[in-house]
Amino acid sequence: MSDDINDRHRLRMERKKAIIDAKIAAADKQIGIIIVNTGNGKGKSSSAFGMAIRAMGHGMKVGVVQFIKGALQTGEERFLRRFPDEISFHAMGEGYTWETQNRERDIAKAQEAWQKAKEFLADPQIGLVVFDELNIALKYKYLDVEAVINDLLARPEMQHVVITGRGAPPELIEIADTVTEMNVVKHAFKAGIGAQAGTEW
Amino acid sequence: MSDDINDRHRLRMERKKAIIDAKIAAADKQIGIIIVNTGNGKGKSSSAFGMAIRAMGHGMKVGVVQFIKGALQTGEERFLRRFPDEISFHAMGEGYTWETQNRERDIAKAQEAWQKAKEFLADPQIGLVVFDELNIALKYKYLDVEAVINDLLARPEMQHVVITGRGAPPELIEIADTVTEMNVVKHAFKAGIGAQAGTEW
Repeated sequence: MSDDINDRHRLRMERKKAIIDAKIAAADKQIGIIIVNTGNGKGKSSSAFGMAIRAMGHGMKVGVVQFIKGALQTGEERFLRRFPDEISFHAMGEGYTWETQNRERDIAKAQEAWQKAKEFLADPQIGLVVFDELNIALKYKYLDVEAVINDLLARPEMQHVVITGRGAPPELIEIADTVTEMNVVKHAFKAGIGAQAGTEW
Repeated sequence: MSDDINDRHRLRMERKKAIIDAKIAAADKQIGIIIVNTGNGKGKSSSAFGMAIRAMGHGMKVGVVQFIKGALQTGEERFLRRFPDEISFHAMGEGYTWETQNRERDIAKAQEAWQKAKEFLADPQIGLVVFDELNIALKYKYLDVEAVINDLLARPEMQHVVITGRGAPPELIEIADTVTEMNVVKHAFKAGIGAQAGTEW
């Protein structure tokens, strides 16, 4: 590696550092934010649970409500239930809607889960709440998006919320602070590899 | 809600269930896969750490090597270091490259980190390895992509690997099983909200 390349690298990195430092200095607001993970790709829920342990690492308490999912106990849930003083779980139960095929029961379950969600949203001791697969419940209109948004916006000022699921409604994207779309580039499932413990659930 | 809507919903869900059940039955291979989380959006690393706890929930051991990052101890790292028998951490240290501005030192550190990575890749007791921000080290050519790929492909058959970072090289995408691109729809940083404990680090 010639000195020339190293010098140019150093100069480029100095400029990059100056730009990034300035941006960081300008972004100094500290406030609870709403994060939405949507799209058809992997990583929506796993990212939300990664954020849960991130918050727990900073001593924050976490509340989780799992919409739609719940029949299958996932690895992350099994792991996180070891820390009941740090993270509180509520699973709506009975699996995905195409497993149950009963719309009225799904609506009743979603409404019940939202009551639990509201308890977390009213508790300033909870620094981060995760509403896993809430977007699916909104998509099927099991919950009213305007009512959900009102409850989200009335939460404690410093509380963060992470919402996951395909097809986030535009009204939710509008009020969210950070929205990421997870897109599929390729997926092992297409190559005949099944859902595996540790990677898929 | 009329019976008609509920009936149509039930029929649609029955068809959906049949299609999904058939796909699941066809995808029956169980094998260690390579997962790549790339793109400019949030959730690449947090999803990898979410997968780490997912694996730990199934009793798997996890190995983590953090490339580039490391000067700042993140919340997830602080949390996960509580379980040294379940997850083993190696951080390359010294922060992002624009903080150090010394290419030769960065290369030496990346090579050193890859030695640790190879130890994990040689250990069949480790069910999941996370190479956080490896794509950045590849992008800056701190590591040779062909050498990295050879080591990845030589790992134990049932071991899963999750690789994160912007700008995954095409050679890596080619050999990966599942690739997700996290894209920014909106980001709180743009609205002047700084990187916050619990959501960003």
